[in-house]
Amino acid sequence: MDRLSLNQRTTERWSVAEAVDGCVRAGIGSIGLWREPVQSCGVAAAARMVADAGLRVSSLCRGGFITAFPGPERDAALDDNRRAIEEAALLGADCLVMVVGGLPPGSRDLAGARARVADGIGALVPDAEAAGVQLALEPMHPLYCADRGVLSTLDQALDLAAPFAPSSVGVVVDTFHVWWDPVVEAAIARSAGRISSFQVCDWITPFPADALLSRGMMGDGHIDFRYFRRLVEAAGYDGPIEVEIFNADLWAADPDEVVALMRKRYEEHVLG
Amino acid sequence: MDRLSLNQRTTERWSVAEAVDGCVRAGIGSIGLWREPVQSCGVAAAARMVADAGLRVSSLCRGGFITAFPGPERDAALDDNRRAIEEAALLGADCLVMVVGGLPPGSRDLAGARARVADGIGALVPDAEAAGVQLALEPMHPLYCADRGVLSTLDQALDLAAPFAPSSVGVVVDTFHVWWDPVVEAAIARSAGRISSFQVCDWITPFPADALLSRGMMGDGHIDFRYFRRLVEAAGYDGPIEVEIFNADLWAADPDEVVALMRKRYEEHVLG
Repeated sequence: MDRLSLNQRTTERWSVAEAVDGCVRAGIGSIGLWREPVQSCGVAAAARMVADAGLRVSSLCRGGFITAFPGPERDAALDDNRRAIEEAALLGADCLVMVVGGLPPGSRDLAGARARVADGIGALVPDAEAAGVQLALEPMHPLYCADRGVLSTLDQALDLAAPFAPSSVGVVVDTFHVWWDPVVEAAIARSAGRISSFQVCDWITPFPADALLSRGMMGDGHIDFRYFRRLVEAAGYDGPIEVEIFNADLWAADPDEVVALMRKRYEEHVLG
Repeated sequence: MDRLSLNQRTTERWSVAEAVDGCVRAGIGSIGLWREPVQSCGVAAAARMVADAGLRVSSLCRGGFITAFPGPERDAALDDNRRAIEEAALLGADCLVMVVGGLPPGSRDLAGARARVADGIGALVPDAEAAGVQLALEPMHPLYCADRGVLSTLDQALDLAAPFAPSSVGVVVDTFHVWWDPVVEAAIARSAGRISSFQVCDWITPFPADALLSRGMMGDGHIDFRYFRRLVEAAGYDGPIEVEIFNADLWAADPDEVVALMRKRYEEHVLG
């Protein structure tokens, strides 16, 4: 259980304080935090709580959304990312997860949006380096290409990261987002030294009505988690294994029970 | 309008006879047929109808679903594909679209399912060649990897097609399925000589509640159709442009109005 990390969104109802307590109660050593609940309690207070509890912060979610055209909206997005970098530094987070954003309203220029992501990452790297924070580029399932993330594959994330030091720009391997990729095995091998975060949650069918809440508990779907754990380990990754699940049924359940189920499924489907 | 093709599922309520009449009324020169409505009226009768109307059959949908483990289920699937090949030959269809199938129930072995697809295509190619039918491998959006098609990218389809003559095994370029792919430009260039079918429909947001009916009319979503038309043309494709849309709102509308809207949107968003 020493590598298991609870991403806060898996137990959506819990505040930072409650999630920290829940991890301690369940013997879980790491936590993935989200900016909104962290801001609700204050970044300094959240940093104290996780430090006092002896928890490792496996990630801060999330920066990104940097596909706007040049102008005030883009400037505001970059400024917000700079605040997120500061927050990640204060929390001592392993990385700041970057969900890069979709197409701007009315635009069908996907290549252009992707080029602006590359520019935006370049603009943020000096801030990240000054703060000692690693930006973690998260390829999103192509399902979200239009509205959440134009970064669609691990290879694309690695190409984007390549100009920068691995300590500044890494990649997230989230099973939900990459499991379908026919070249994922080679892409994970290529990620050696750049894997910022390994996240697990399942792909379930039939596909839920709300595409944003379509993730499942490990074992409820179609993904072979051991296979992916071995691939990231073969690429040298030995950090936390973070469980991030957006699912209406889990959010309606007792968070302690969700954590207990997560521990059980982690043992059965990720380890071993 | 001479390249526009109506895929029968776009006007789901229409029988083959009604769809043929609808194409003639609208001055549309090609039609994409589906096996079930064709079987409802009889293959020979359908072949006569399209021939009498002077329509080109741009595709027959669909063969595939060949991911079952070796045994009676797989044998039955291959036999069904052989019947589909015969039907495509009788209809004089440009190609038989292959939707390869998802993971078998309970299996998480994606690589194994993909290997069985390759074996299955190999088993069917002699039948296709004997009948003079081109199998058209359709990469499906990764959204459908678990339950409809483990063939997820154009590159993967091209790798699968590579051992066979282009006249026997081609690929489908469907904008809905491939638009997000960061390497699609190179993959379409690589498809030169193997493009069996070019299909258009839009990716719309918010993502509809029924994932199987999530396609939109051209212009209602995020895809740059002119860009894709130019890419397939640069790869030498000058065949029909088939509109295949699964959408509950369109299925509820008057099919003649759907066809009129399709013509208009085709002019505005695909041509020009």
